[in-house]
This record gives sequence, structure tokens and C-alpha cells, in this order.
Amino acid sequence: MSVSERTLLGPGPSNPYPEATLGLAAPLLGHLDPEFITLLERTCERLRSLWGTENPLTLPLSGTGSLGMETAFANTVRSGDVVVVAVNGLFGERMCEVAGRYGAEVVRVDHEWGRPVDVQRVLDAHPAPKLVAAVHAETSTGVVSDIGALGRALRERSDDTLLLADCVTSLGGMPMALDEWRVDIAYSGTQKCLGVAPGLAPFTFSERAWERRVQAPPVWYVDLGLLGAYVRGGPGGRAYHHTAPTAMVASLDAALARIEEEGVDSVSARHEAAGARLREGLQEMGLELFAAEGHRLSQLTSVRVPDGVDSGKVRERLLRDYGLEIGAGVGPHAATVWRIGLMGHNARLDRAELVLSALRRVLER
Amino acid sequence: MSVSERTLLGPGPSNPYPEATLGLAAPLLGHLDPEFITLLERTCERLRSLWGTENPLTLPLSGTGSLGMETAFANTVRSGDVVVVAVNGLFGERMCEVAGRYGAEVVRVDHEWGRPVDVQRVLDAHPAPKLVAAVHAETSTGVVSDIGALGRALRERSDDTLLLADCVTSLGGMPMALDEWRVDIAYSGTQKCLGVAPGLAPFTFSERAWERRVQAPPVWYVDLGLLGAYVRGGPGGRAYHHTAPTAMVASLDAALARIEEEGVDSVSARHEAAGARLREGLQEMGLELFAAEGHRLSQLTSVRVPDGVDSGKVRERLLRDYGLEIGAGVGPHAATVWRIGLMGHNARLDRAELVLSALRRVLER
Repeated sequence: MSVSERTLLGPGPSNPYPEATLGLAAPLLGHLDPEFITLLERTCERLRSLWGTENPLTLPLSGTGSLGMETAFANTVRSGDVVVVAVNGLFGERMCEVAGRYGAEVVRVDHEWGRPVDVQRVLDAHPAPKLVAAVHAETSTGVVSDIGALGRALRERSDDTLLLADCVTSLGGMPMALDEWRVDIAYSGTQKCLGVAPGLAPFTFSERAWERRVQAPPVWYVDLGLLGAYVRGGPGGRAYHHTAPTAMVASLDAALARIEEEGVDSVSARHEAAGARLREGLQEMGLELFAAEGHRLSQLTSVRVPDGVDSGKVRERLLRDYGLEIGAGVGPHAATVWRIGLMGHNARLDRAELVLSALRRVLER
Repeated sequence: MSVSERTLLGPGPSNPYPEATLGLAAPLLGHLDPEFITLLERTCERLRSLWGTENPLTLPLSGTGSLGMETAFANTVRSGDVVVVAVNGLFGERMCEVAGRYGAEVVRVDHEWGRPVDVQRVLDAHPAPKLVAAVHAETSTGVVSDIGALGRALRERSDDTLLLADCVTSLGGMPMALDEWRVDIAYSGTQKCLGVAPGLAPFTFSERAWERRVQAPPVWYVDLGLLGAYVRGGPGGRAYHHTAPTAMVASLDAALARIEEEGVDSVSARHEAAGARLREGLQEMGLELFAAEGHRLSQLTSVRVPDGVDSGKVRERLLRDYGLEIGAGVGPHAATVWRIGLMGHNARLDRAELVLSALRRVLER
């Protein structure tokens, strides 16, 4: 059976690091094998290091990034809790929906899509929310927000509010310092800047969040009380919860090792250089960037579809003629924006030149 | 970094089919790529065929088998619903716990561990439950129950009760006919008889269950209304829900293709022959099988640890000297039972001889 090879320059998945693919295909370990436990502990430690946190409860959840969001709300929200959500794209929208299902009284702070989160407006939205949630790198728009400024301002005001950050498109592609930023709860996905296939949700939960967590939340699968007993162990040793996806964890571990070896700063610089060249090249072509200047992600660039150009046809041609995937826009911008990712293994100058050249050719014809 | 190679003869994961490993390592596709959509549809069709169902809503969920259980209850149970659960091992126990979290009024029908589900007792437990749940192949004890007898008896009595079957350890290892058996909801896991790494939960939901489903259940990640719009499509086409774990789905598809090529009957016969030889060999060694005679799974054999033998030490030696993993017992039988799986790619006579010989050697010393 023939298999097509794609260059995945959409909003994710991206092409995995070669090390991650080797990790996937390595001989499988059982989830209770002492060797796998060592590997899992190492993976958790590597996630802590990359995220800049000492949270003991840091682990890869057995699902995609969306399961990270579910886990965050399921374990923190009780019916009637006030949750302030900064909405500046699809994933902020989704946080409102998910928080609402757990009975939160959601206070939305709406922003124009393509703009970063306004810290002051979020602070002003409610004097004492139980939780504030914001997206670090909005996958739907290519915008980065200053989570550190938000976290420090919240903590200065009160000790009563927890901060949740969606890091799906940021982890592995830019510097992170969750503890310094006063982030209590964060999740990511493996298929973006971490350079691994989709399937796991790296997750971290502070001791402050742990003390205030929901006991026995409705969702058994992501009950952190139970998951904690497996990952952290306890007086009776590790308690079996569910079969960990061992191949995916081995793959994540291998990608994290690769990132460590290259150096986190070099990896971030690589993302920056590739993103800068892409933005420059797109503007040279006369295209207009969508995200607000000064708040553009390097790993994910949003660009307006030129007037009169059929967004879908361009994407189809790129896929057909070049095996190259870029993303459409989302929601109100579905047909008027493209999203181009240079993430993880694809955060390279050669990928930037490839997509620029291919896009130029397709637009010229 | 060196990697150990294990022969995984515990209760799962088992060693994947070589085809499944190749599928994992194949060039990654995006989750919206037309080629991936074709692959996903083919996978769903192959799952239908293997399960013996025509349920349109049949798909691999993005999590491990436990997420299948969660999805089943989250989408069927409303607060106060009567749910009868047949408990004859750990996974029946867990169904009580999960159903309870969704507010079910759980009616337990307890059985001695190692015994199959008693259809009459389940029928007698309640005259008109909303849902009856039972485990087809109990991973904790190695027992098979007659789900077809249960399903037909329930349907004969009334049209008001849905039947849920846990097929984690049965799918891919034995003949299945869900529609004939009148099963409405079923889930499995990839890491047992399907011969794939852990990480996906094949799931199926009948039209009867769909009509009675919970609208907007608490758990967004497994809301079948939303997942259905992605997998089945709708008037507006496929609605994006979350990024599918494309590498794992490609791996599952490859394993299902392998099973089809070998022939489902041959695969079942291979499991039967391997299991029969294992049971025979264990009894020749003077060991006592745990599961009730006539109700023993071929793919998973439970055997009592001989008096005076340290269960853990034997398992450690098998792992250290032979790279061979077998499982401990569970719950009250943790130290007194071993569980030996011959599943999927490992359902072979050579694996049976290997574990018999190695176990004999370790017990003799």
C-alpha cells in the first residue's frame, strides 16, 4: 500500500523529529515494566524542565491536547465557580464551553481575533474569580499573549485565583517559565512544537491547584487524584489507573531528549529565525499578516488570503503538486486566512523557503 | 540509548503486529488530509466488520480503552438512571464507579471472580433498567461471558434497555457479532488482541443508543454529538472536533488490514490453538487454572501461583532472564494468580512454548 509523504506546515500536526519516529517504532514496553516507569519519570522531568516548573504533578495525559483542556477544568471547577476566560480565538471560545459544562459561571473577556489578551481587562472582569484561563499561543490566529504579565498581576492582587494557560502551540517552540509566570495549570499537545505525532497531552498542575482540586470529578479517566496516585506513587506504591500509551510516551521522551541535546535556547532561536524569514517573505510577496504586529508567533503565522483568491484551491494545489499542507483559517476567518506552521522539526529555513516558493508559484498561475 | 526488547505475555500491551509498527512509523498525515480521512473511514469500516455491526457511529476514540468506558457512560447515563452492572472482576467494578460518577443508580450483580456472568441473575436484578453493562472478556480473571445470551434475553423482555459490553480483551481475538448479540454500546483497546500499541479505544454506538443519548454530556472530549459530526459528517460537512492521533490510527488500520488478510476465522483459531496449548502445558506442570472451566479465554489465561512460591520474584526472573513479561493477578488475587496473555501477534504456539519452558525453568530453581 503506497503512502504519501507530506510536508506538514499547517497548524499541526507537524512532521515529527526523526528521533520521535524512532521512539514510536522501538520495541514496545509494558506500562508496568520497570524500564517504562524509568522512561516515564524521565519524560515527566523533561517536561518540567521545558516548561520551567517544579510541579510534582507533571505528566503526559493519554489523549490529545483537547483532553488537557478537559482535565484542567474537570479537576478545578465546581458548580457555580466564577471562571474568567480571555477569549481571543477558537481555543478561548472552547474553554468557555468546557468550563460551562462543569457548571462554571463563565465571565468572558472578548477580544478581537488576532489581538493578544489585554491583561487589565481580564483583571477588571471580576474581582475574585476562582480561576482565570487564557491561551498562551492562539493556534487559531497565530497570536502570543503575555501570560507572565497576567500571572504576576493576578498573584499580586490575591492568592485566591488560579491561573490556567493553554500551551498547546507554545511548548517546545519558545521559552517558558511557568513557575515564574505564576501559572498553576497548563496543558499542551505533542503534535505542534514538540515534534511528535498527535496523541498525548503534556499536563502540569501546581501544588496550589492540587490543594484546591475537585475530589472525584465526574470524569474518571482524568481524575487527577487517581492519576496522581499512579504518577507520583503513594504509601502503597503506584496505583494502576489505566494502560499508559507506551509507544507514544517513548516517542515524546525521544523528542524531548532531542530538544535537550540541541539546547532549548537554540530550539527557540531556530523557531524565531524560521518564523522571521517566513513573515518577511510573505510580506515581500505583498501579502498581509493577520496577527497584530509585535504579538506574532514564530511557530505559526497567519496571513490574509489575497482578494479574489480561492483559499481552498490554493491549499489543494499545494497539497497535490508539492505534498505540502498549510492550514485554512478558523471560524469567521475560515476562507480569508491561511495558517502556516514552522514547528518543531519543521522550524527550519529550508521549510520557510519551500512554502514561500511553492505559494508564490501557485499564486502566480 | 539502548532499548530492551520484551516478549509481552501479560494482560496487555502485547507485542504489536509488525504491520502495526510499520504503520506507526510511516510518514505522518495531517488529520484533515483527504488521504487521512479515507484511511479513517476505512479503519471505521474494518472495525464494523470485525465487530459484526453496521453501526454508523463506529470509530477509534483518541485515548486508551478506559476512555471507551468513560465515553459509554458519559453519553448514556442521566442522573437517576438505573444501571445494572454485572461484576465478575475489576472492570465490572470500575463500571460501577464510572456509572456512579454520572449519577446512575447502580444495581450491582456480584459474581465470584473467575466465574462468568449469570444471565438470569442480571435479568432478575431489575425489571426495567435504562442500561445493562457487562464485560465480555474479563481481563482481570481470564473469563469469557455469553454476551449474546444476555443481549437476546434483554431484548426479548423489553425494548427499553440498552446493553453495553466491554470488549477490551475480546476484539481481534475471538468471533464477535454485536448486532446479532443485541449489543448497543461497546468499546475495546488497541493493545490486546488487535496487536497495536496502547492509545486508541475502538468504540461503537447503535442507532438505538444514539436516539437516547445524553445531549451535551459533561465531558466535551467524548461528546458523541460532536464526535459524530466529525466522523459521520453532516449537512455542513465534517466539523472539526479535535486533532485525531493520526499515527496511531494508521497503525490500527494496518493491523486491521493484517487481520483481514489472514482471515478473521484463522486469527480466532490461532488464538484458540495457542491458548489451548498453554492451558494444557500449565496443567501438565501441575498448576491449577483460575478461571472456571468452560469459560476460559484463549487469549488470556489465569493460573494460580503454587503454594510457597513468591509471585513477584518469578515475574522478575522471567523479565530479567528471558525478557518475558507476564502479569500479576488483580485485587484480592494480586499475589496468588498470574495472568498470561497470548494476544494478537503473540497468539502463537512458539510463544506458548516459550512461556511454558521459561516458567518451568524458573519454578524448578
